[in-house]
Amino acid sequence: MIALGGSTVDRSKWKRKSIVTLALTVLTSSQAILIVWSKRAGKYEYSVTTANFLVEALKCALSLAALTRIWRNEGVTEDNRLSTSWDEVSVYPIPAALYLIKNLLQYYIFAYVDAPGYQILKNFNIISTGVLYRIILKKKLSEIQWAAFILLCAGCTTAQLNSNSDRVLQTPFEGWLMAIIMALLSGFAGVYTEAIIKKRPSRNINVQNFWLYVFGMVFNAMAILAQDFDAVMNKGFFHGYSLITVLMILNHALSGLAVSMVMKYADNIVKVYSTSVAMLLTAVVSVFLFGFHLSLAFFLGSTVVSISVYLHSIGKLQR
Amino acid sequence: MIALGGSTVDRSKWKRKSIVTLALTVLTSSQAILIVWSKRAGKYEYSVTTANFLVEALKCALSLAALTRIWRNEGVTEDNRLSTSWDEVSVYPIPAALYLIKNLLQYYIFAYVDAPGYQILKNFNIISTGVLYRIILKKKLSEIQWAAFILLCAGCTTAQLNSNSDRVLQTPFEGWLMAIIMALLSGFAGVYTEAIIKKRPSRNINVQNFWLYVFGMVFNAMAILAQDFDAVMNKGFFHGYSLITVLMILNHALSGLAVSMVMKYADNIVKVYSTSVAMLLTAVVSVFLFGFHLSLAFFLGSTVVSISVYLHSIGKLQR
Repeated sequence: MIALGGSTVDRSKWKRKSIVTLALTVLTSSQAILIVWSKRAGKYEYSVTTANFLVEALKCALSLAALTRIWRNEGVTEDNRLSTSWDEVSVYPIPAALYLIKNLLQYYIFAYVDAPGYQILKNFNIISTGVLYRIILKKKLSEIQWAAFILLCAGCTTAQLNSNSDRVLQTPFEGWLMAIIMALLSGFAGVYTEAIIKKRPSRNINVQNFWLYVFGMVFNAMAILAQDFDAVMNKGFFHGYSLITVLMILNHALSGLAVSMVMKYADNIVKVYSTSVAMLLTAVVSVFLFGFHLSLAFFLGSTVVSISVYLHSIGKLQR
Repeated sequence: MIALGGSTVDRSKWKRKSIVTLALTVLTSSQAILIVWSKRAGKYEYSVTTANFLVEALKCALSLAALTRIWRNEGVTEDNRLSTSWDEVSVYPIPAALYLIKNLLQYYIFAYVDAPGYQILKNFNIISTGVLYRIILKKKLSEIQWAAFILLCAGCTTAQLNSNSDRVLQTPFEGWLMAIIMALLSGFAGVYTEAIIKKRPSRNINVQNFWLYVFGMVFNAMAILAQDFDAVMNKGFFHGYSLITVLMILNHALSGLAVSMVMKYADNIVKVYSTSVAMLLTAVVSVFLFGFHLSLAFFLGSTVVSISVYLHSIGKLQR
């Protein structure tokens, strides 16, 4: 598209798309590395719900800060004003609500699957995102891109294999069902967010983010009340917070913003590829940082994921 | 090719290609199952070199039997006469010699790699066949077909993973080198056989087989003299033979003939796909026959191999 004499607009669009994708990949990798680091430093002492609330609040504040700068430079326009219609704002709570339901279900799935097994089952997300992307956004993937998408799922799962992975095959029916429901919820939330953001292409992304995150704050405040009200009242909101906690909140907020940007300027498919490649990068970086060993399965899975990325890109050119 | 109104000749060629490919797949699977069966029945008591010699002799006899029938029906022609020129026959010993060298090297590689590790390293054959097919036969594979070929190699290896597979990563440099040399020898022998057979397309395949297998007998006779001369002299040629041994020899001879047919009517790429799919079929059949368990890695590898077969077929259509 670029090489064949694309216009300056095409080129700058492609550049923006690449930058947000790269940002998401780097932020997702460093996120996983922070999690490993925090686990090594000791177990989580802080309440996860308060941290999630702060992530939403930080994203909200950053969007507002970006907006005030834009207002100062460009003035308030139809596209960047914060005030909105009931018609526009009514859909924004839906992704936040879906994520909340998914997070609540997450506690119950561990009755059927252990944590490493859950990591493997989470790869259903890849397939569910592809299917829902096709159904809800009505965007077509070519045959080769579908093949690439199945390979991405198989490759990511292969890269995560270890000697205990076969236990996941003993997961009871309820476990499979919940894993599939969670994958559908998470895929639906992602695709629905893209639909909301893309429905008004000229609307400033920071306004769209602001409203998404306001509802994120509301739903997470509800989660604090439901789960950690006593702990927060007795020990305080910031009990157990450390430097790593602060870094993790900062990282989550930035990667959340990067996800929004990818939804605006690229799509859910790019998001899935970006986070999958980030998973592999994390493993490679962990070799140097934490002395991890890479398995044969990891090399094979990475090969399959690389071919998948390549096929996705040639599949696009041939449409 | 078929759907778009191919001629009757195209259709019958395609039918012949499908039949020989199917025959090779079924014979290769049953071969692996016979090996498992013979291992269960106890260890090999017979000398492998005598069995190899008998396989070549049987293939030679079967080719000759087919030829006498053809001579009776069609008479002796330029294409089906057994007598040959020095120019034609001089290249036939080369594949047999290459296979012999490869089989001799096989004994030495076990100084560096264990048997399951060697099974994994043998997947280099897939890549070496593709590369040599491109270089020697100068036939192009499309980009998608190359991607499919790398996937085939990764998928087959993934399907064979078990909890000890990571040991193969500790293989010393000499082991890797020998594995690569053996893969090149085996790939070269396969591609060279195809070149010999295809050089004279009108020549009857049974004559070509006859000469290939005559040299196979000669080289295997040399192997008996070098390795098992004393054993054969003291215990006799057929010492330790059982029903399974006879079935294995029969199966090897038939699959050898099927390989020749695939080389004549299809190519080395089809051969590699056929034997790879046979490997997966074997595992599935072993679940029913021997109560084997399929691992998660097997399911993932099979998925990747299936997508590879699919990509190979669409890659061809788009050339």
